[in-house]
Amino acid sequence: MEHSTERAAPKRRGRRAGGEDTKAALLEAAREVFVERGYDGATVRVIAARAGVDAAMVNHWFGGKEGLFAKAVLQFPVDPGELVERVLDGPREQLGERIARMFLTVWDTSGGGSFAALVRSVTAHEQVARVLRELFLQVVLKRVVGTLDVDRPELRAALCASQIVGMGMVRYVVSFEPLVSAEVETLVAAVGPTLQRYLTGDISTVPSKQV
Amino acid sequence: MEHSTERAAPKRRGRRAGGEDTKAALLEAAREVFVERGYDGATVRVIAARAGVDAAMVNHWFGGKEGLFAKAVLQFPVDPGELVERVLDGPREQLGERIARMFLTVWDTSGGGSFAALVRSVTAHEQVARVLRELFLQVVLKRVVGTLDVDRPELRAALCASQIVGMGMVRYVVSFEPLVSAEVETLVAAVGPTLQRYLTGDISTVPSKQV
Repeated sequence: MEHSTERAAPKRRGRRAGGEDTKAALLEAAREVFVERGYDGATVRVIAARAGVDAAMVNHWFGGKEGLFAKAVLQFPVDPGELVERVLDGPREQLGERIARMFLTVWDTSGGGSFAALVRSVTAHEQVARVLRELFLQVVLKRVVGTLDVDRPELRAALCASQIVGMGMVRYVVSFEPLVSAEVETLVAAVGPTLQRYLTGDISTVPSKQV
Repeated sequence: MEHSTERAAPKRRGRRAGGEDTKAALLEAAREVFVERGYDGATVRVIAARAGVDAAMVNHWFGGKEGLFAKAVLQFPVDPGELVERVLDGPREQLGERIARMFLTVWDTSGGGSFAALVRSVTAHEQVARVLRELFLQVVLKRVVGTLDVDRPELRAALCASQIVGMGMVRYVVSFEPLVSAEVETLVAAVGPTLQRYLTGDISTVPSKQV
């Protein structure tokens, strides 16, 4: 560790002064501040002050505001920028399956709890829905779709979001079998081609109307 | 009208004795009883008694328990049996687009409010999630998939549910543009082929792994 947390959190009572403590305080403060002010309004400085730690701790522990948001509000265990890198790394025609595999793996890791918590926050707080939109759509999906040089990138991103969110709802919240107990690769095979078509395929021709 | 509502609701205070009153009382009672007892445990007799009306009123106004459930809990404006009939009426290769069009039209009619209310109930009450599963999956989707003679019908039904629920989430709850303001037929063209493949297509081969 290059940073000392001593100076940063001088007034916290009875807790260990170690890094885990700083991290937990930041996550708690971030949840509050993001919901109160939205993604754009919530500054690193305000969150750090609320947590009683130095603002540099946000970069140190979460790689910046985006990473802190992902962990605190989305309860995403990984930095979204890193996920985007990972998803983009590979053949373009397998993008759909890599995206499906990534989301399922991340959510399965938390037993679906992180997705369910996210949906509860989204439905209870319009603010959370807004920050989720901002991050998920602007940062994750648009950055992926932005690499593709396709028509109607926003619609394609939103269609992907619809299948990904729906998969999360049915696997972790509403619990429709056999989708709950299905292997990740079974779902990747089913849903990957859907995402691939939304990203790079023809999304405007209804097959029955083809000549 | 073949039934009189006079005898059925003799003790209700100060409200009009007309049919709308009976209907509203049944909807209110049904919401409570379905959440308390689940779909199977909630009998027409118990719901009618709670509403202070004759059990025959359930058939008269809602065509039976299924229809009452659909209207009270799912806030679906149409009898699900009728929707299934309508969806099945037409060429098999256009089933996906008919299903997409049906759900979007029904939910758009209520401005998305019925879908949003449904998601709030589902996330707040495990009971509602259970009755939703029972109805949506058993009655609507399995009945449709049951006509198709395909392998893994349950997985196909659940995959359709994932895309339909996700579309509802993104259009009415999380509000990802341009999916919120898109025309129904734009979405039918995008999502119809997904549902069609889930229903009748190959759902186990990842294209990148094809030889």
